[in-house]
Amino acid sequence: MNRITLSPRIRITPYHASTAAAGVSDISVYNQMVMPTSYGDLKAEYDRLINGVAIWDVSVERQVQISGPDAHVATQYFTARDITNMVEGQGKYVAMCDHAGRILNDPVLMKLSGNRYWFSIADNNMLLWCKGIAAERGWDVEVIEPDVSPLAVQGPKAEDLIAELFGEHVRELKYFWFTETELDGIPLVLCRSGWSKQGGFELFLQDGSRGDDLWAKIVAAGEKYDIGPGAPNHVERVESGLLSFGGDNTPDSNPLEVGMQRYVDTDTDVEYIGKAALQAVVAAGGPERLFVGVNVAGDLTEAWPLPVRTPIMQDGQQVGTLAAIVHSHRLGRTIGLAQISRAVVEAGTMVDVQTPEGPRPATTQQLPFL
Amino acid sequence: MNRITLSPRIRITPYHASTAAAGVSDISVYNQMVMPTSYGDLKAEYDRLINGVAIWDVSVERQVQISGPDAHVATQYFTARDITNMVEGQGKYVAMCDHAGRILNDPVLMKLSGNRYWFSIADNNMLLWCKGIAAERGWDVEVIEPDVSPLAVQGPKAEDLIAELFGEHVRELKYFWFTETELDGIPLVLCRSGWSKQGGFELFLQDGSRGDDLWAKIVAAGEKYDIGPGAPNHVERVESGLLSFGGDNTPDSNPLEVGMQRYVDTDTDVEYIGKAALQAVVAAGGPERLFVGVNVAGDLTEAWPLPVRTPIMQDGQQVGTLAAIVHSHRLGRTIGLAQISRAVVEAGTMVDVQTPEGPRPATTQQLPFL
Repeated sequence: MNRITLSPRIRITPYHASTAAAGVSDISVYNQMVMPTSYGDLKAEYDRLINGVAIWDVSVERQVQISGPDAHVATQYFTARDITNMVEGQGKYVAMCDHAGRILNDPVLMKLSGNRYWFSIADNNMLLWCKGIAAERGWDVEVIEPDVSPLAVQGPKAEDLIAELFGEHVRELKYFWFTETELDGIPLVLCRSGWSKQGGFELFLQDGSRGDDLWAKIVAAGEKYDIGPGAPNHVERVESGLLSFGGDNTPDSNPLEVGMQRYVDTDTDVEYIGKAALQAVVAAGGPERLFVGVNVAGDLTEAWPLPVRTPIMQDGQQVGTLAAIVHSHRLGRTIGLAQISRAVVEAGTMVDVQTPEGPRPATTQQLPFL
Repeated sequence: MNRITLSPRIRITPYHASTAAAGVSDISVYNQMVMPTSYGDLKAEYDRLINGVAIWDVSVERQVQISGPDAHVATQYFTARDITNMVEGQGKYVAMCDHAGRILNDPVLMKLSGNRYWFSIADNNMLLWCKGIAAERGWDVEVIEPDVSPLAVQGPKAEDLIAELFGEHVRELKYFWFTETELDGIPLVLCRSGWSKQGGFELFLQDGSRGDDLWAKIVAAGEKYDIGPGAPNHVERVESGLLSFGGDNTPDSNPLEVGMQRYVDTDTDVEYIGKAALQAVVAAGGPERLFVGVNVAGDLTEAWPLPVRTPIMQDGQQVGTLAAIVHSHRLGRTIGLAQISRAVVEAGTMVDVQTPEGPRPATTQQLPFL
């Protein structure tokens, strides 16, 4: 395991001092920013997420803000989903595509007002993408990365904790909906969201100088729920079938090949980047690959997980790529996530996963596992 | 020092096995790819670069290839320098800017033919930028990241080694000029370049499956020169005043504020992104900040370097930001790189650097130090 060299090229987050004090041991780099990935005990972090409540520094989920008179037109153009009927306070999971229909990002899009939107982005520089295209089109919009750094509170006890801090009304918030609020003068947007299926909220801190204050207030209020630090959890996200954009997909994937069929509108009058290409995929009968779960024979060994996508074979032919493999604590077996040929998935036939110790038989299944 | 969590989201390089076998101890992430930063003995790596020859895996320096009938027009539009008279086989250090004239990258642009160019990029997703704008403009170009992974051979003994492998003609190559060639069937582009001022070449490997072969051939031929592994060297690059794009500059910097005055053409008829904004900067008398060296009183302590930009003050006012500070082995003193108000630089007055132990007096000077 290598150490990481930090430099001003990789930004630290507003919660940096707090995560260091909490004993962060492992990090990654995401959107050119430090992302804590563990505090040294992955199993305890998993259990806390499944049974209790955890606090995560997910500042790396940067916002791309589109604002101004042409904000709606521009935002729609960047989004492979019809957002005509979206209302203020609503968020939607969307795909952003290039002109060939390949997915560039899978953000949550939040409508702050009729002329202000946030893309809450995965790991890719969508600020650059939106800024360049908006300027070329001559739209009257401002495209910036605002001072916003999400802090996630996740797990079955998150709602009680957040209700205690912000009021009972938060229990009524629908998934991906949000409200602008504050906590003792710390400005934030409170959204029911987060990269787990264990329930919870994200607090979109709107003042980078108050990160450690916000962290301290959540931890103090969460003490009675035995809150502890955590991070986006690799085992739970595989069990839940959550896409890790950029890792699970190959660079040439369209959104129908990463499990986003329900979130892509091709039968719509609105104009967006990649629409013609996606319509052609639908017209041709659908995507060539599907994003599915795999149940792998045998136990996970020390040689896994590998930091690379690995081939999935059938009868000597590559039929897919495996992006993640874990031991599921709750299922008690080895599971993974993969992009696999649709024909193979629909036939339901066995495949072979190429592990470091040789091929292992596996079956495919729909996501999520749990 | 944190460990790094790897995943398929962060690509490994074609030299991964070789760098691991050579004992890589520290890495960073650059263009969503693993960049080796040390093999455990930074002083030995520095000495090897200054006095001998080192081999560096700099695959993270990705290429953005623009090819097709409109390649020249598109490439010029992305480049804040007049490339009208560039010829095949020539490279130029250029700035890529956004429509407001802010620098997005400082690549070496290489002209492979009249309709094929490579931007050899620093850490930012210029593929996305070029692809989006080319599609919006309807240009007849293909914009891709080709299978190209540079390997640098740097240091005063690099030329002898490269001449032995490729022929005496390489001694005639001018700086940033290149030639398409091969080594025992391994296809590559050989360029006189590299992110140091100690001389050397970059071998742009054009077949990712041959990385370890290429590494092994260079190391075998380099044995008599006592070649060893290294990486872009932080101390040497500060001494040489080489820009680390994304770290040394603030996000709102124009290229005149990062030391690229000589490489930006504002008095030209060619059209490029950001030209009007840069002309306005020149018309207003020049940039507000300059990229300069600072000589800092006292020794470097354990608390440095910090992974953040830190303020430079004068009379209680912030007048700049420090991006890097090192102990220069050759100069025997503490030096750094900073963006500082032009008025302060031109007055030549003392400034204070905010170190973790309090302010330290410093003087500014032109780059390079050495």
